[in-house]
Amino acid sequence: MTFSALSHLECPRCGATHDADQIIGLCPCGSPLLARYDVPVLRKEDLASRSPDLWRYHELLPVRSPENVVTLGEGMTPLLPMPRYGAELGVDRLLMKDEGLIPTGTFKARGAAVGVSRAYEVGVRKIAMPTNGNAGSAWAAYAARAGMEALIAMPVAAPEICRREVTAVGARLQLIDGLIGDAAAYIRSQPGYFDASTLKEPYRIEGKKTMGLEIAEQLGWSLPDVIVYPTGGGVGIIGIWKALNELRDLGWISGPLPRLVAVQSTGCAPIVRAWEKGLVESEPWPDANTVAFGITVPKALGDFLVLQAITETNGCAIAVDDEDILTEQHLAARLEGTFTCPEGAANFAAIRQLRESGWLHANDQVVALNTGAGLKYPETVPL
Amino acid sequence: MTFSALSHLECPRCGATHDADQIIGLCPCGSPLLARYDVPVLRKEDLASRSPDLWRYHELLPVRSPENVVTLGEGMTPLLPMPRYGAELGVDRLLMKDEGLIPTGTFKARGAAVGVSRAYEVGVRKIAMPTNGNAGSAWAAYAARAGMEALIAMPVAAPEICRREVTAVGARLQLIDGLIGDAAAYIRSQPGYFDASTLKEPYRIEGKKTMGLEIAEQLGWSLPDVIVYPTGGGVGIIGIWKALNELRDLGWISGPLPRLVAVQSTGCAPIVRAWEKGLVESEPWPDANTVAFGITVPKALGDFLVLQAITETNGCAIAVDDEDILTEQHLAARLEGTFTCPEGAANFAAIRQLRESGWLHANDQVVALNTGAGLKYPETVPL
Ligand SMILES: Cc1ncc(COP(=O)(O)O)c(C=O)c1O
Ligand SMILES: Cc1ncc(COP(=O)(O)O)c(C=O)c1O
Ligand SMILES: [Zn+2]
Ligand SMILES: [Zn+2]
Repeated sequence: MTFSALSHLECPRCGATHDADQIIGLCPCGSPLLARYDVPVLRKEDLASRSPDLWRYHELLPVRSPENVVTLGEGMTPLLPMPRYGAELGVDRLLMKDEGLIPTGTFKARGAAVGVSRAYEVGVRKIAMPTNGNAGSAWAAYAARAGMEALIAMPVAAPEICRREVTAVGARLQLIDGLIGDAAAYIRSQPGYFDASTLKEPYRIEGKKTMGLEIAEQLGWSLPDVIVYPTGGGVGIIGIWKALNELRDLGWISGPLPRLVAVQSTGCAPIVRAWEKGLVESEPWPDANTVAFGITVPKALGDFLVLQAITETNGCAIAVDDEDILTEQHLAARLEGTFTCPEGAANFAAIRQLRESGWLHANDQVVALNTGAGLKYPETVPL
Repeated sequence: MTFSALSHLECPRCGATHDADQIIGLCPCGSPLLARYDVPVLRKEDLASRSPDLWRYHELLPVRSPENVVTLGEGMTPLLPMPRYGAELGVDRLLMKDEGLIPTGTFKARGAAVGVSRAYEVGVRKIAMPTNGNAGSAWAAYAARAGMEALIAMPVAAPEICRREVTAVGARLQLIDGLIGDAAAYIRSQPGYFDASTLKEPYRIEGKKTMGLEIAEQLGWSLPDVIVYPTGGGVGIIGIWKALNELRDLGWISGPLPRLVAVQSTGCAPIVRAWEKGLVESEPWPDANTVAFGITVPKALGDFLVLQAITETNGCAIAVDDEDILTEQHLAARLEGTFTCPEGAANFAAIRQLRESGWLHANDQVVALNTGAGLKYPETVPL
């Protein structure tokens, strides 16, 4: 029995394949690389007795040896029915997957757990990354857990708690007077570190795809009609799409995939604009700014994959106002007791719009990803 | 098949029994009441296929109908090996159960989930409670989830995030210029609400006991040598003790119970003082003050039960300095990537002392409960 069924890395742009057992970043053509697996001999029933974390899917993850797994207990977050709030939004079967219940309080822990584990396995000992905050908290924590050095560059405007999390675990923090692109430029100027930027290494997405695996398993291997995701760098939504395709290859699910919805803020909506214009790539968004700081990504390396995911699943991209984000965040809290992050609340603003426009039907089963704990954004609710 | 095996309520002080299917607070003798169960026909294997939350133990919980379960997905928090930090503390087999990964970010969610569900089931629609913060956050959230009204009274010195959590979910917040006892007096002055104060209602402890059930299940129904708990009102440690006794009655575990350790701060150590003096009850601690705000309880209603739990299991009570709490919190973060709350870090300061005194052995398997997420205490780590 092999722990991982990882076969090789493949370029979704030029089609080249690469050996996975080396330290590697982008494809020489400039595209992110995707991990490919031999279809493992695995039955759904085999999962039942495994522990409730994302490593239960180890055959579909890239870490070859269980000894290299770096874990803080991440995964199998709850998928909560939201009956009262769903009624209010006009969507009878609304579910929220709560990614606040995970180490460092956001879904970024999934990417970090798998990314750090695999980086360690191929020999990396020093990582560096630019971040809007939450990814930095997560990667710093998992690097500490692995005994690795980490350098994290973060815009000064990132949530204060993320700075504290990074320094608490002993990582080096560099504040950047600019946006995530400026942080990325700083990281590129630092020699000696492995650049773990979004999609510049192939394994973060493997961690994030486990959200898709879990949604399918938690629904008894049936699929919802729609999955709604707050989209910044895009790895979350691409990961879910990748997961569902892998489950289809395994024969564990069938039928059409859920319509994937990429939600952005009207203050930074490059993917929405590209989708509306029918482009295959986005253009950099000038003066990006939103209360949902995690999705302030003016130009994402994986934009073409996000656009492909929503197109192929008959999904869409939609932008919502900051004001509506905060209104829905408060409404969800009062109706369901859930204190979501603004990025997570952006989904609800999108659901309201899509229901009003008729794109969503009253009986669609809709899964919204609350990508982080409201606890990380105390200033979004009144004192 | 009955969902709950709840039989009746029993007074641990005077021995009286009471009907459980009524709205009830303390025993007329003034003691807290404990839920008792008919030993259910349940095999360990039955649990395997149940979802990874605390409701998997529903036979041992007081909620009679699944329809009354109010849940946000709480329970089955990770039990993490801490190899590097354990080596540093001189305890080879150190495990941390991470109660930060739960709705509202602390183990209080367990008591609130079960307490609110059962209160709803027996007909309560308005609850009120005094709190050091975290319990208020939790009960307010679950009350909102249940569609119940909540009034929460909290010392002004409680963590700011807890105030925000309470108002975010639409509960009424009353700030109190004093300690938790003063908040309790305020609550008693408010008619029309069910008083859900610590141990004044019998079911919060049933939720908290699931920490003990999970530890046993996660260790494959074997028991650790020692369990270390930051003790305020005492419900957590009493709950774990109750759970282990119930598992023994079920025949699922055998042998001596783990030695239970009640950890307090030198700034508020009534139970430690009582234990050192060999008393069966504590005396109110004057001028209570500690960075571990959750355990600032000058006189706990269940103190006699805590003292009984540690005595009967050959455990102990120990006080630690605030300075040591913060030192250990930072060390745990740097060595393991875990950002604990100060209450959780108090355990580590205790473990260091107990190891140095020889009370703990190098090969004892020790489980420390990190009762909450460090995210709720941003000011305890540098910016
Ligand atoms: C809370 C939160 N939600 C959503 C996102 C966007 O995720 P992705 O980059 O995978 O699109 C981020 C990224 O920083 C985030 O922190
Ligand atoms: C984080 C934290 N740890 C520990 C405690 C103490 O728990 P107990 O009252 O069950 O002894 C509290 C109570 O407020 C708390 O908030
Ligand atoms: Zn290529
Ligand atoms: Zn009595």
